[in-house]
Order: sequence, then C-alpha cells, then structure tokens
Amino acid sequence: MPATKQKKTDVLIELAKRRGIFWPSYEIYGGVKGLLTLGNVGFEIKRRLENLWIKYFVYSRNFQIIESPVIGPRPVYVASGHETQFTDKALKCEKCCSVFRADHLLSEVGINVPEGASLEHIDELVAHNKVKCPNCGENFSKAFQWLLMFKTEIGVGDPGYLRPETAQGIFTEFKRLYVHSRSSLPLGVAQIGKVFRNEVSPRQGPIRLREFTIMEVEFFFDPETNTGPLDEKYLEETIPVLTAEDQEKGFSGLRSVKVRDAVEKGFFSNNWIPFFLVLTKSFLKALGIPDGSYRFREKLPSERAHYAKQLFDCEVLLESWGWTEVAGFAYRTDYDLSGHMRVSGEDMSVFISSTNKKVVPHVVEPSFGAERLLYALLEYSLKIEEDGRIYLSIPSYLSPFDVSVFPLLSKPDFIAKAKEVASYLSDFKVNFDDSGSIGRRYARADEIGIPFAVTIDHQTFSDDTVTLRFRDTKEQKRISIASLPTELARLLSTPKPLV
Amino acid sequence: MPATKQKKTDVLIELAKRRGIFWPSYEIYGGVKGLLTLGNVGFEIKRRLENLWIKYFVYSRNFQIIESPVIGPRPVYVASGHETQFTDKALKCEKCCSVFRADHLLSEVGINVPEGASLEHIDELVAHNKVKCPNCGENFSKAFQWLLMFKTEIGVGDPGYLRPETAQGIFTEFKRLYVHSRSSLPLGVAQIGKVFRNEVSPRQGPIRLREFTIMEVEFFFDPETNTGPLDEKYLEETIPVLTAEDQEKGFSGLRSVKVRDAVEKGFFSNNWIPFFLVLTKSFLKALGIPDGSYRFREKLPSERAHYAKQLFDCEVLLESWGWTEVAGFAYRTDYDLSGHMRVSGEDMSVFISSTNKKVVPHVVEPSFGAERLLYALLEYSLKIEEDGRIYLSIPSYLSPFDVSVFPLLSKPDFIAKAKEVASYLSDFKVNFDDSGSIGRRYARADEIGIPFAVTIDHQTFSDDTVTLRFRDTKEQKRISIASLPTELARLLSTPKPLV
Repeated sequence: MPATKQKKTDVLIELAKRRGIFWPSYEIYGGVKGLLTLGNVGFEIKRRLENLWIKYFVYSRNFQIIESPVIGPRPVYVASGHETQFTDKALKCEKCCSVFRADHLLSEVGINVPEGASLEHIDELVAHNKVKCPNCGENFSKAFQWLLMFKTEIGVGDPGYLRPETAQGIFTEFKRLYVHSRSSLPLGVAQIGKVFRNEVSPRQGPIRLREFTIMEVEFFFDPETNTGPLDEKYLEETIPVLTAEDQEKGFSGLRSVKVRDAVEKGFFSNNWIPFFLVLTKSFLKALGIPDGSYRFREKLPSERAHYAKQLFDCEVLLESWGWTEVAGFAYRTDYDLSGHMRVSGEDMSVFISSTNKKVVPHVVEPSFGAERLLYALLEYSLKIEEDGRIYLSIPSYLSPFDVSVFPLLSKPDFIAKAKEVASYLSDFKVNFDDSGSIGRRYARADEIGIPFAVTIDHQTFSDDTVTLRFRDTKEQKRISIASLPTELARLLSTPKPLV
Repeated sequence: MPATKQKKTDVLIELAKRRGIFWPSYEIYGGVKGLLTLGNVGFEIKRRLENLWIKYFVYSRNFQIIESPVIGPRPVYVASGHETQFTDKALKCEKCCSVFRADHLLSEVGINVPEGASLEHIDELVAHNKVKCPNCGENFSKAFQWLLMFKTEIGVGDPGYLRPETAQGIFTEFKRLYVHSRSSLPLGVAQIGKVFRNEVSPRQGPIRLREFTIMEVEFFFDPETNTGPLDEKYLEETIPVLTAEDQEKGFSGLRSVKVRDAVEKGFFSNNWIPFFLVLTKSFLKALGIPDGSYRFREKLPSERAHYAKQLFDCEVLLESWGWTEVAGFAYRTDYDLSGHMRVSGEDMSVFISSTNKKVVPHVVEPSFGAERLLYALLEYSLKIEEDGRIYLSIPSYLSPFDVSVFPLLSKPDFIAKAKEVASYLSDFKVNFDDSGSIGRRYARADEIGIPFAVTIDHQTFSDDTVTLRFRDTKEQKRISIASLPTELARLLSTPKPLV
C-alpha cells in the first residue's frame, strides 16, 4: 500500500523500525510488552529533546538537577503512599489464572468503568454482565488491587521497588538539597531518568510503556509567601484548557484561556501551576507540536493521583490514540514531605524568616514523558507527499544529525573533498554518506529528518563553494565553505523560553 | 582537623556532601549500601563527562548509540550466561542467617582466597581455619553462589532481571542494528545507562555501587578480515601496561609499552583492543587523570569474566582504594551472539562478501564506569593549599558551570549590571552569585571547580570591561564584555581524541 494511503501511525512505526528510531525490544525472544529500544536516530532526537527540556525547565530558572537511584527501599514507597495507592484494579480467572486490567477488560465487552470505581463495584459489574475470562470462558475471582511497581530484593532480604517516578529520590534528599541552595525557597529540583510501571498487560505499542524516561521538577515553595513568580509576564499569555467543569458538562475540546483571567477567577490552586503551563506551551512550540493539537486538561477528583490536590494533564492529539497525556502538573502540597517525616521521623520543615514560622514546603510538580513527547513530535513532523516522498520536518536543533555532507559523485576526488569539508565541520554532528545516487542520499537523510545537506559538486573545485540544501523545501543555495560554520550555527540555534 | 592534615578522600567526601556533588542515598531511612545520589554539581560534571565520552567513543568513530531497557526477560540472561556465571561465592550463618561475601569475610580474618576458588575450596578454608560468623559466633552452612543480578517479575509471573551491563540490550537487537548500518562490518554500537549489581553487602562508599552508570561500546568485527583499524596512528603510541606474565612474577607496577612492539609480539588477541586502549589514554588525559596514575592491567585467566577470552582493566590509583578499575576491555569473541542464537533460535550470522562466508561477528567491548571516573577525576582535581584553600581544578569543559558572574558589591547598580552580563552570556552555563563578600564567592566557586569568574567592578561602568579571574592561579585580567563570549568559548573548548 502506498504511504499516502496508509495511516500515519503505520508509516511512522515502519520507518522507525527500518531507520533505527525505535522498535519493540527483545523481538528474538518473542518481545516483552511495554519495552522499547531506541536506535541511533531515536536516541539522538530524544537526547536533544532532553537537553532542550533542561534548557527550558532547569537552566533558565536556575533550578538544581540531580540523579538519584532507580531502586528504592520499601519504606520510601510506604511513606509516599505508592505501595497501597499506586495500583490498577485487576481480575484473575479462577481457572486459567490469566490476569486482566479490569477497566480494559470490561470496556472491551462494552461496559464503561467509572474512574475511581471500587473493587466491589467492579465485582458487581462482572456479576451483573456475566463477564467471563476471554481466554478460557470461566469465572473471575474477586477484583483485586494490582501493584504497578516492580518489586525486587536488595542484598539479603530487604524489599525494594523500582521507582515509578523520580520524585521520591528528590523528596527523600530534601534536607541536603535545601542546604545546597543555601537554605532558601522557592527551590526547584529537576531529574531526568528511567521510571518503571508494571502494567498487567500493556497495549498501545510505543505509548504505554513499562519502562520510560521521565523529566520532572519538584518545585518547593512556601504556600504563604511564595505563591507565584515575581515576573508576571506569564499572566499575559493564553493557554488551551479543558476544565473539570466543562468535562462534567460533556464538553471535550479545549478553550483558549487568558492566564490572568483564570488566575483572577481562582481557577488554579497557586500561581506556580499556570506559570509552568505557560512555560510548557513555549516548550511544545519548540518541539514543533502545533497550537490546537494539545490542551491542558484539568483532571477530575476521581482521576487524580493519590498525592495531588489539583492536577492538569497536558494532552496531545495523536492519530491512533486520541488525546494522549504527555505531561502532568500536580499540586502535591506537603503530602510527600509530610509522609517521609512521619515514616522516617526526620524533620523536613524549614524556617521562613519573613513570617518567623516553620513550614513544610508545598510542591508543584511538572512531569514530562520523554518517549511520548518523542512520539508526538515525530508524528507531527511526519510528512507524506503525493509522490510518496516521506520526510520528518523535525526542528533543526532536535534532528539526529546537524547536517549531511555528500560528494555529488562517488569519485575519489569528490569523496576526498567531502571528507575534508566534513572534518572542517567537526563541531557539528555530520552525516557523511557517499554511497548510491545523490537523490537516494537526500531521500535517506530526509527520512530521518536531517535538516541540511551540504553537497560537494564540480564547482566546488574551482571556487570552494558548495550547495546547501534545505530538507523541507528541497531548495538549494550556493554558499562558500568558509561561511558554513556560521550559517549552520545560525540555522541550528535553539529557541529560548517565553517566560 | 585542618584540611591539609586530612586524607584527600575525607576532604572530598565532606565537600561532596556539603556542596551537592554526591552522598549516600536515603539517609533519612538509615541509607542503603551501594546507592549514591548525585547532586546538582555532581550530576553536571558527570553529564559533561558522558558527553565527552560520546564525542571520543561514538561521534569520532561514527558509531551508533542506542538506548535499550533496564529490565530484561530471563531468557536473555540465560543465553548470556549471567544467570549461572554472574555470581559471588557467599557464606550464610546457620544461626543468624547473616550472609557474607566469602572472599571478603575470609580476607578480614587474614585468609587469602585465590580468584576462581571453588565452593569446596572455600568450605575447606572455613573449616580448616575454624571461621565463625562475626555477628553471632556460630557456624556457616556450605558456601553457595550468590547471584549478582537483581530479580523482578514482569507482568503476571514472568521472571526478569535488571541488566548488569547494557551489552545484552545491544546483542539481542543486533540484527536490526546491523541493518541500520547498511549491513556492513565493522560496526560499533554504544550505550550509556544505569546497570545494577546486587552485591551482598557493598563497602567502599562511592566506589562499590549496586547501581551505577556504564558507558560501553560493543564493537562487532569479522575476525578474519577486520582485525584492526586501517589508520595505524595508534601503533606509534605508548601505553602503561601490567601484563599477566608480570603479575605472575609478582610485579605490580606498570611498564610503558609501545603499542607497535606489543602488537608485533602477538600480545593482543586482535588490534581493536590496543586501538581502544590508546583512545582511552587520550580520554583519561582529557579528564585530567595524569600519566603514571593509571595502567592497563591484563586480567589473569582466573579473574576474567565468563564471556572474555582476553580482558584488560583500566585501573586508576586512588588514595583510599589503591588501583581501582574504572574501565574494562573485553574480547568477547562470538560468545554472546552465539548464546542468543542457541537460546532464541534466530540466526545472527552475517554474510561477508570479500570472503564469501557467513560469520558470527566477534566483539571487543570497551566499558567505562561513569561514577568511578567521576570520583577519580575529582580526587585528582582536588587541591588543598597550605593556607587551607580548597579547590577542584577540573578541566574547564567538565566543570559544573562554565563561568561565574559576580557583582563586586551587593549594590543595586552592580547587581543589575551583573545580571545584564549574565544574560549576555546565556549561551554558557552561568553561576550568578551576589551574596556575601566577593572573596567568599570566589572561594565557593573554586570549591566546585568553576574555572572562570567574571566580576563587574567600578571600572565596568565607565568602559564596559570586567575582570576575568582564573580558578587555579587566582590571576585576573581585564577584558571587554563584548569579547567575553569568544574568549570563554576558546577557554571552554573540548579537546579532540588522539586517534
């Protein structure tokens, strides 16, 4: 089937496997659901995406960024509430012992399970609708809580978990981190790293992963004196919002809302939330995810994580998966620090000199899923033209290589000159390619989103100029080799955050 | 005790906790041995170290770099041999059930356990020397193999392991990776990521970790036609080597060896090994680890990992831990690919057109421990002067900030001008600090190794010049604000690999 007739998802997933963007891991062993490998191209785009996030969410705000372990001892996740709360409701077949996520199984037979439904409610739905095991047709035993954390054992018999979020590695270290910021609030601490969620049986390919990379900030503030940024520029922005109220009325789109108006109406629990939403708007723009294709959805009380007093999801509209969460913005209050105080017995409160009070800091947490953002930016960058040409119009600063360098002909003098130019451009990440026709080389580079191609042609030998070709338009211009570094640096410069 | 009288290790570990370099994780819960948190300063140095490694070991060689999951299903680690071979010998007390690593326990009571000693041999040593449990004084049951992998369960009942190396995430995907490199050898595939080793009870603080970051290349080649690099520049270099033969004679230092001579004597299994040793020499130089403080030690047959036909460790001399492994260079042959072929049934051989043969590629693996390299570079960069001044003379391109920007005085006009300069330098990572005396600010910046400080003083207001101060010498020079970006870019430029 020609690419123009296929779903974008299918074209992208085929391209991703063929060109080293991503694919399901361990295929030679039949695969493991929810595990993905990023190839050379996917890794580089993701790495640049992470670097851009650091620029927007860490450096531009002078936040800390740290690295804490993946493995945590059990008391950490008792204190955080995850051991009891971070669960899915599940059903197990009495005969064949197959386990299913209850809401998924029931929705497949046309029964809608409301968010937050109790175990008893699920048992009633199963009994009333006579739902049987799809594998063997037998009855289910009672619904139960399926723990979403991976368990392990540390040393001799100490239970541990793989972190489901990087946040607890920040909360447990708060006392030191506070000192490292010279004991002052507000304090932002970021972390990027792998997190783990042991879904019963994940579907949705690259979207629902058991292991993925999270980029998050735990932002600590005094709820009495630090309720928003001093610079009020963010108040003048508009953001696309779907409120809880709208959802309760059955509306499911988005409304463009002026931040100042929403703040004045008391819509946000504190002003750090809208500030981070505006910063995210600016980040999504830098990823090439267009306006109108994402929204900030306020989660209903029944949908909220156990630690969140207010929670917004940033959702991007994807062809196959609809509105898909790519980031969350949780007002965690003092829930986590207080939990660790209670279980560890350590005092996590800090002294605020302006109010002469001790306070347990409150937390707002912007948290981003790197692989989902990667997928979203790829889907929005995928262009399929009428003639079957496929290319990724990835922003230049996120592309897997900065520039291609090609000899027009695969002849020794052309190749030698091209290698010389590639070496001259060694401050950039260069894709050197001298095999096949020049047309095929352009097409290969376009497919993985390399934004610029420098071609050494006959004229190069007489005047030291080359052609510079632009991926999206296929336009070419002549440029001297000497001016390439400056011109490329300009073309590859990263945008700056709006606020 | 003044810093000049203390051990470097103690000064460094105190500094690391106080200034956000690294510290033991989860202290509020009593800590977990072998888990480390990197603070803001440590994370940034490590991140730059990783970027430098990518430059040397990936980009400069046009290798791939990928990201595969931490979790692997059991068959992967059956095929790789880890499930049976990746073990320590352990002893368990019959009464109190304490478990000890056998060689550590015996060495503490003065008994040397030879590398590769059998379980029976350990039982004999325990019996003959009447070794008892140090905790309760009772007898040990028979020695047993302690599995060094962390176990977990994927979904419903599928056993899995946390990877002890990133390598298997490359071997299992070899068929795709080979296609992504247009089906040609040699092929280098790199990966940086967390790995996990469930030591019984690790000691040695920041050196012996249960969770750490590995940076490795699996380099695939045809053992008949690709036995070394075409560019023979590496043959002219010398490297510090301690051979197996020397060790058997009781020599324990290092000898400077010309690579060409060693190659001609047939010392290396193939020429990719010495090539990577030379590249590593160049990398260690870039980290500021001086000649004479590291060596390449050939491991004795009894010490080699189960997959290695020849193995070199790169060891750095550390004050408290002696010669410490920071990297390994293993000739893994076709051990891993053949193992996966056997267990998965998938053909991993490739067709070599020049010899008209199918071959299972052989592998050389350079593998680096990021946290140990970080520790080593910190120890070698730590300077303690007679007057008590402490600073880290980290290479500029690895330092946690590129430059400090200070107002000489904490007055509004100085602060405003300093902020303006900081903003002008937004392409750099700037440490802005306006609190306390200028002397204290210099000292704080020196302690975390910031190489340069720009100070806005009285003269700045008349001629737009500032002082540029150099960390190691404390020298200052005047420079115009306009020329700062170019001058800093020059001072911060990263070196290039030697080969």
